[in-house]
Amino acid sequence: MVPHLVPRQLVRLFRWQVACARGASVQPRTWAAASRIPSLLSPWGAMGTSRLVCRSSSSTSPCAPEVVLTQERYPVTRLPFSVVSEEDLEAFERIIPGRVVTDPEVLEASNVDWLRTVRGGSKVLLRPRTSQEVAHILRYCHERNLAVNPQGGNTGMVGGSVPVFDEIILSTAQMNQVISFHSVSGTLVCQAGCVLEELSRYVEERGFVMPLDLGAKGSCHIGGNVATNAGGLRFLRYGSLHGTVLGLEVVLADGTILNCLTSLRKDNTGYDLKQLFIGSEGTLGVITAVSIQCPPKPTAVNVAFLGCPGFAEVLQTFSSCRGLLGEILSAYEFMDAECMRLVTHHLCLTSPVQESPFYVLIETSGSRAEHDAEKLSDFLEQVLSSGLVTDGTVATDQMKLKALWALRERISEALSQDGYVYKYDLSLPAEGLYDLVPELRARLGSRAKHVVGYGHLGDGNLHLNVTSEAFSPLLLDALEPYVYEWTARQRGSVSAEHGLGFRKRGVLSYSKPPEALRLMQQLKALLDPQGILNPYKTLPAQA
Amino acid sequence: MVPHLVPRQLVRLFRWQVACARGASVQPRTWAAASRIPSLLSPWGAMGTSRLVCRSSSSTSPCAPEVVLTQERYPVTRLPFSVVSEEDLEAFERIIPGRVVTDPEVLEASNVDWLRTVRGGSKVLLRPRTSQEVAHILRYCHERNLAVNPQGGNTGMVGGSVPVFDEIILSTAQMNQVISFHSVSGTLVCQAGCVLEELSRYVEERGFVMPLDLGAKGSCHIGGNVATNAGGLRFLRYGSLHGTVLGLEVVLADGTILNCLTSLRKDNTGYDLKQLFIGSEGTLGVITAVSIQCPPKPTAVNVAFLGCPGFAEVLQTFSSCRGLLGEILSAYEFMDAECMRLVTHHLCLTSPVQESPFYVLIETSGSRAEHDAEKLSDFLEQVLSSGLVTDGTVATDQMKLKALWALRERISEALSQDGYVYKYDLSLPAEGLYDLVPELRARLGSRAKHVVGYGHLGDGNLHLNVTSEAFSPLLLDALEPYVYEWTARQRGSVSAEHGLGFRKRGVLSYSKPPEALRLMQQLKALLDPQGILNPYKTLPAQA
Repeated sequence: MVPHLVPRQLVRLFRWQVACARGASVQPRTWAAASRIPSLLSPWGAMGTSRLVCRSSSSTSPCAPEVVLTQERYPVTRLPFSVVSEEDLEAFERIIPGRVVTDPEVLEASNVDWLRTVRGGSKVLLRPRTSQEVAHILRYCHERNLAVNPQGGNTGMVGGSVPVFDEIILSTAQMNQVISFHSVSGTLVCQAGCVLEELSRYVEERGFVMPLDLGAKGSCHIGGNVATNAGGLRFLRYGSLHGTVLGLEVVLADGTILNCLTSLRKDNTGYDLKQLFIGSEGTLGVITAVSIQCPPKPTAVNVAFLGCPGFAEVLQTFSSCRGLLGEILSAYEFMDAECMRLVTHHLCLTSPVQESPFYVLIETSGSRAEHDAEKLSDFLEQVLSSGLVTDGTVATDQMKLKALWALRERISEALSQDGYVYKYDLSLPAEGLYDLVPELRARLGSRAKHVVGYGHLGDGNLHLNVTSEAFSPLLLDALEPYVYEWTARQRGSVSAEHGLGFRKRGVLSYSKPPEALRLMQQLKALLDPQGILNPYKTLPAQA
Repeated sequence: MVPHLVPRQLVRLFRWQVACARGASVQPRTWAAASRIPSLLSPWGAMGTSRLVCRSSSSTSPCAPEVVLTQERYPVTRLPFSVVSEEDLEAFERIIPGRVVTDPEVLEASNVDWLRTVRGGSKVLLRPRTSQEVAHILRYCHERNLAVNPQGGNTGMVGGSVPVFDEIILSTAQMNQVISFHSVSGTLVCQAGCVLEELSRYVEERGFVMPLDLGAKGSCHIGGNVATNAGGLRFLRYGSLHGTVLGLEVVLADGTILNCLTSLRKDNTGYDLKQLFIGSEGTLGVITAVSIQCPPKPTAVNVAFLGCPGFAEVLQTFSSCRGLLGEILSAYEFMDAECMRLVTHHLCLTSPVQESPFYVLIETSGSRAEHDAEKLSDFLEQVLSSGLVTDGTVATDQMKLKALWALRERISEALSQDGYVYKYDLSLPAEGLYDLVPELRARLGSRAKHVVGYGHLGDGNLHLNVTSEAFSPLLLDALEPYVYEWTARQRGSVSAEHGLGFRKRGVLSYSKPPEALRLMQQLKALLDPQGILNPYKTLPAQA
């Protein structure tokens, strides 16, 4: 029987071994800086080597890029959009003087996704600063039948944020102003290109937090977060963007500005149009401004990192945790032993607990430190004494919190250094959330380098990743459609939070019936009859 | 300086005067039973007298009803739908044998709204039990161009739930089965006609609560709640239905069944179609089943009822409350002195605190009674010692909780007994939430019997109500468009949670720009090209 301890004592009791300072501090939460700097480096370019090397000698880029052009690698045909002409460039220059980019080196970073799996061949990037400029641009493109690829921080996981062919890249990077913040209600109104981490800092200085947080926060734009309905690490506590986004300003395909930028928590005047654009991946309109409800900043935050002997214990620990931590529970993440091996091997992080088959990261956020500490202590006592948890550590200070979070947040980075990564982002019933991982290990055998599972257990969201030394069509065939069919049989979702973008648009029907697909296509046709907005994305190619 | 007390002691310190047992117990939360019993009585018919008496001798009903036919009172023209024939009735009888109602007495309750402000003249009410039956009915109506009025518990505030002319009433009353409940995740899947209170009881027995609660819970259907995007009393804590509804099954106007009845917390495969139907008031499709995320049931609930000397103090008390109660705050409601006079006068309730210009009801819901009590006690000490609150009482046991809630929840009932009620449901910035009330009192003078303000302060939602002895067009002219223009100037919403229905469909443009209205009309045309679903509702009549 473990004595009744407050977390500070527990910290001392448990071993504290997060030794690797680099991994523990600033690094982890700034993905994909490449999207904002004209550079060919991937976010992890300096540390690892991408296995997705250029396989084609017919590449037209003078820079001998590593990533194969999407049009060469995937079976996709260019739709009959116009090609950008000199006159078009002059017209854009009149709309946004000095912000029409045609320098190939600058364009390269915006043509390639951060995972380095797809690469477009756009010849022009536009950097508007206002919604009116976006409206002018889209009105022009609509008239000229020019395709447009809206781009935020370019941190997407499914190739939705870069062009497939020569679409014009419409970047929100210079639309980065806070429009208003209401210090009583916590309502933030800002332009779409504000970086999530900067917004977090802004509202935290004012006693609030952003209702979402994700690994890519250092680069991703709030407009992109909303356009992709990003989930992330605070979903368990603050819920979906469908609930926390109060209003949007959107520019439609024909240049119409749709101003639904209300700051009201409740508004039942007619259909809630903004919902259409949340998660539509820029295919129905370009989000230019966001109004979002920020919850008050918790005054006490604790993180516990625990080892569990099996997945059944991970689930039981979650049940116990919900009961004993109740309203202060703000995250319940899990990772398997393989994940821990990857982050320790590739990123020089050290596990703070004994080697275990599974690890759980629990975060509490509350308004009263001593109450939260007591709840957490009682919870830990229960799970330790009942054998659900075999080892653990607790942190309350900022540095250690970050170090523990890094173990979970940097798995994606470690994977990208392990080889070519096959990524799956599945929603599944919690009970069977991990079943697919051992099943795949057995199925793939030595064809796969690693098969790992981690994710947001509290939201029923598994990140399943498979690595191999290099891209292998045979391995891909063993994975797909197997993974999708398996997920469909559980009535799960084949994309929990990453969206469909370009690379997954063909798998929509595993999670949605034909009637839903038909209605989606009708909505697309209604809002963007020429299909100029982010073509080749989200919806499957029509026969 | 008030001594540091735990709430139990505070209860003894404060006066406890809720003496009227009838008002304090079961009565308050069962509105509009009339909608489920074939009766001409309004929910409060036995206690009060409706002032909206029949003004027309041309009424065709044999029962000499009190409520004027909508088509006689309002400027509205019947659209060219077919008229239900004997053959149609036979066809319906084949689809749902024994559940085609044509008895005028039974129909009467479904033709009149519970506020007794509008009255349709439908000759037939259909009671399907399954989605397939709804699909058959709609396919038939679509082919025959017959208009349909979907109806849940008929507890709406804006005349959206009853026919305007002779639309077929499609009742969800017999679609009242729970389909599944997941005892780990708290996901409830049920048919649309389940009564909210019954669902609450069902999930509470299993350790969860419904994420919404409202005065009409005893009659309203979950399908109607979703169709009208009901807000209610738990909005502050659990947020909007756009966030808590996980999936919907909807039958479209042409009879297509759109099955988006997922139970997943996250699903980013394509556009989130269910969002379109949340708040569309049955004009885009008929919701037949709902999947909803239920939060764990709090183990400790406290209610404090406080008197405040002014609205500024109501606001400051809210700020203090958010800081000190933090994550356990689950409701912050306010009412003015006039409201208290009405509930004490008409409903025999007794105020538990000294007479004050304003009253505040605060609810906490948490997982640990002693922590919550300590937080609440510290909060009360602060607001009492600083003079923000002048008197108060706290309850923890079920009977007293209900009695305190009754003071707030039964205001609407008291108003309906005070005379003809002009109801406004506004979203406004919290700072100026009450400004309109004294302004209107001055403007209306003796023309109004009472002008009262109450509502969900935590959500920025004011319920503004004006009563007069009888309906007065002059008083109405003094109120409208004044109230709407005032709200529009504050960039508020002219319908925070009640929706637009029939009676407010003309005011949409006070809160939405022309581009939004146009897109709404396009969506309606896409989903219901003949306009057979709940016609004359939500969107303004087209020129």
